[in-house]
Amino acid sequence: MAERPMWDQIGTSFVQLYYQQFDTNREQLGALYTDASCLSWEGQQFQGKASIMEKLMHNITSQDHQPAPDNCILSMVVGQLKVDNDPVMGFHQMFVLKNMNDKWICSNDIFRLALYNFA
Amino acid sequence: MAERPMWDQIGTSFVQLYYQQFDTNREQLGALYTDASCLSWEGQQFQGKASIMEKLMHNITSQDHQPAPDNCILSMVVGQLKVDNDPVMGFHQMFVLKNMNDKWICSNDIFRLALYNFA
Repeated sequence: MAERPMWDQIGTSFVQLYYQQFDTNREQLGALYTDASCLSWEGQQFQGKASIMEKLMHNITSQDHQPAPDNCILSMVVGQLKVDNDPVMGFHQMFVLKNMNDKWICSNDIFRLALYNFA
Repeated sequence: MAERPMWDQIGTSFVQLYYQQFDTNREQLGALYTDASCLSWEGQQFQGKASIMEKLMHNITSQDHQPAPDNCILSMVVGQLKVDNDPVMGFHQMFVLKNMNDKWICSNDIFRLALYNFA
């Protein structure tokens, strides 16, 4: 079996690290962002190391990775999240990963709940 | 009211054009891709001007755009599609748009149905 391409390995590792840290050790997530990073969370725009995140647990249904311009890696994640006793909600989130000084950082982050898709 | 930033205007125009052409004049879509463009469609990888697309009608629920590295624009679309008499299916699709020779082309395209998210 052919070895998976490097961008697929990096993307998969990032996704695993991101959601593991989000769910167990959220303050570590700041290291993945720079002050130029963008976050779109349910239509609200944020820039810089995101300080406002809610306590959510994630299950990943699918993930896709592609090599993108400027040696970036593009990743899309589809999954579910569960808050307390609320019903499970679907979400989709995408990232652009960029190599800066031999470290992969998150340059772009877009998050949407599937909640309103069938309203 | 502040004028919307250029990347937001370009991203919104691209999304409108893409789904309009997809639904009414699909053969025109090839002009938006180059031979280096990547498409991930439900986990299958394609490269080059995508020739295999199914006949689907799209309704857009939300769209997000961000400026990305290398002067690219990153777009995520959440919506529904309806095929014949089948139930409505949710989808999410993301694009990286890149300016080449004063023309915006689609460098990356990732598509997933929401179908299996709650299986």
